[in-house]
Amino acid sequence: MLDQLPEEKKRYLFELLDPETAADVLQEVSDLSRDQLLEDIQIPRLEKIIDQTASDDAADIIGELPAELAEKILDRIDSERAGELRQLLRYDEESAGGIMSKQYVSVPQDAAVEQAIERFRASHEEVEFVYYLYVTDRRGALVGYVSLAQLVLSRPDQKVSEIMESEVVSVPTDMDQEEVAALVEKYDLAAMPVVDRAGRLVGRITVDDVVDVIVDEASEDISKMAGTTDKEIRHDSALRIASIRLPWIVISLLGGILSGTIISHFKGTLGSLLALAFFIPVITAMGGNIGIQSSAIVVRGLATGEIGLFDIARRLLREARIGLLMGLMCGVIVGLVAFLWQGNALLGVIVGSAMLSAITVAATMGALVPLVFKKLNIDPAIATGPFVTMSNDIVGLFIYFGLAFMLLRLLA
Amino acid sequence: MLDQLPEEKKRYLFELLDPETAADVLQEVSDLSRDQLLEDIQIPRLEKIIDQTASDDAADIIGELPAELAEKILDRIDSERAGELRQLLRYDEESAGGIMSKQYVSVPQDAAVEQAIERFRASHEEVEFVYYLYVTDRRGALVGYVSLAQLVLSRPDQKVSEIMESEVVSVPTDMDQEEVAALVEKYDLAAMPVVDRAGRLVGRITVDDVVDVIVDEASEDISKMAGTTDKEIRHDSALRIASIRLPWIVISLLGGILSGTIISHFKGTLGSLLALAFFIPVITAMGGNIGIQSSAIVVRGLATGEIGLFDIARRLLREARIGLLMGLMCGVIVGLVAFLWQGNALLGVIVGSAMLSAITVAATMGALVPLVFKKLNIDPAIATGPFVTMSNDIVGLFIYFGLAFMLLRLLA
Repeated sequence: MLDQLPEEKKRYLFELLDPETAADVLQEVSDLSRDQLLEDIQIPRLEKIIDQTASDDAADIIGELPAELAEKILDRIDSERAGELRQLLRYDEESAGGIMSKQYVSVPQDAAVEQAIERFRASHEEVEFVYYLYVTDRRGALVGYVSLAQLVLSRPDQKVSEIMESEVVSVPTDMDQEEVAALVEKYDLAAMPVVDRAGRLVGRITVDDVVDVIVDEASEDISKMAGTTDKEIRHDSALRIASIRLPWIVISLLGGILSGTIISHFKGTLGSLLALAFFIPVITAMGGNIGIQSSAIVVRGLATGEIGLFDIARRLLREARIGLLMGLMCGVIVGLVAFLWQGNALLGVIVGSAMLSAITVAATMGALVPLVFKKLNIDPAIATGPFVTMSNDIVGLFIYFGLAFMLLRLLA
Repeated sequence: MLDQLPEEKKRYLFELLDPETAADVLQEVSDLSRDQLLEDIQIPRLEKIIDQTASDDAADIIGELPAELAEKILDRIDSERAGELRQLLRYDEESAGGIMSKQYVSVPQDAAVEQAIERFRASHEEVEFVYYLYVTDRRGALVGYVSLAQLVLSRPDQKVSEIMESEVVSVPTDMDQEEVAALVEKYDLAAMPVVDRAGRLVGRITVDDVVDVIVDEASEDISKMAGTTDKEIRHDSALRIASIRLPWIVISLLGGILSGTIISHFKGTLGSLLALAFFIPVITAMGGNIGIQSSAIVVRGLATGEIGLFDIARRLLREARIGLLMGLMCGVIVGLVAFLWQGNALLGVIVGSAMLSAITVAATMGALVPLVFKKLNIDPAIATGPFVTMSNDIVGLFIYFGLAFMLLRLLA
């Protein structure tokens, strides 16, 4: 409900909550509301809220504060916890270290099941969502894990090292969160242990945080494909949002003007057959849409791993064939329409064959661009949308007027 | 690796696997590979594989088989399990019933912790990923749950009803999988119990399946926004894929031809100022891109719940303001370019003010269309992409040529 209220009322209601509820609410509201609620908060109150928040979420909150305020808060809270938070804040926000929590249960490998249960009992207040106990050696290095299920099923006097699973999947602190999510998805884990460079256990990422990562990454991809960023949803000001969207818009403006110079270059051709102008929108729209279809499929396939970089040639060939098929169909339709509407067979041939070529090129380019970007380690989602549309506009118009110029000249 | 091989080699390698590994592999390969591997499989072998697969995944496999083959398999396997599978197959594939598994651990509410552990131990072989034991009354109705953690921390003689959490979130069998995923995400659950209409426990959805749903739904949204479906990734044939993409392409072809008739309607205007044609692509491209930006943000916001249907007017007003800001900037730039390039001040005024209006309308329409679709219970993702681009092409050209017509007449 808070999310739907005007800013002042949000703040007022939030002030009335006890610190524990406030901490929970802060995790659930939208990013925009969270920013608004934290903007003018009193330091003692924020301190109490941080105190009630798990370390990964607490670090997220502190990380969003102005540096000076963040320091003030860190100075006030318990020094051990402050140390933990400072450590978490050093990691990139979108890395394993940035999303991990310092709350987990670990047991030494020479402990007995009984002791492991005791250790779990002692930490139970502090650590939520325990699915596994992590087993470490004397150096603190992760050597295995025991699921709670295993613990329930074992005799109290058994050694942890006997019942543990020693083939344990873990991630380094600097792994990108998207890769972490893919591993959790692949291995169907409820929690993923995080280790430092020396293999020592330093944190844990639970599946509920991974679910958030997956949702965020999908939003990020969709926004990038549309030529904006999902960060804009955190802003309320039209000016701020416009400035976020502007870069792609300016590029696409320049692309549009470039398209104009192509038409202007063929001014003579256009002047001798004005009806050519009627088909400019259909040529650009079809190129754009067909390009977006093939690039969206490739971008998403690359993100989910269903498309690899192994068989690029085969994929491009297939997209070219798909384009050829659709281009044939659309070319015949639009060619016939042009012929019947304007009573000009030559116009029909020009429009139809330009459509065929433009669509074939658009489908191939739509698949090629994200694959090339991926190979160059640039996010392929950026390639889609404005970039593909713009390129296809330019190429499509060039084919269209180039063809018109040649055919008109040939027959003149 | 299997995914990257040619079809024949996939089949050959797959044949060599023992049934248990084959069952695991079938869960991990891409949908396309899965279809290929199952196409010509021998019935006795498939039976063995089904036998090694959890019931939700087994039902998915059988659901994809031709009806006759599915019946043959169901007749051969153990009758109790066949009954379970037949039941699962009755549910919609994308509903809670369709993604749930029949493997879960439940205990009667009058049982003691000791008995619950015994029950868990007995089912351990058969049920993977146990995080909670579900507590049922004599009718089989779900009345609470006990986490494994709680079980570990309780005395063996305690009654389950004393330690259970009785505020239990569950979903009905016919709930859409996307809603189920949103609930699991909201409540940070590791598994969600599924109940029938009488409130009886009938299955369980684990978080790893929810992660798959979230990934699938994001792919579905992205493909829909691009005017195709993610199902195409299951096909290898260019003809099949072309036919999947064609509906939107044909609609967008008709839209393009409609755009052409608008230009043709203003043939006289165009004839008297040919340079108007140079700016057709920039008007349509900008309208399209700006419309996609605002609709992508709204579609994604609706999907994640960050945008509600409460404050539609406020959101539209904001998009209109964003459009106005971007339109002002782009209008001034393109107007100046038109003026300086063609040395025609009137052309500059026409192009600039048409750009301003077209962009403002495009931004507002981009947000309006998905909100209206959502209100009408049509998937808003369909609204974005081709539909918004097409409408904005038509509206943009109408504004452009309408304005040119009026201004040229006024000053003639």
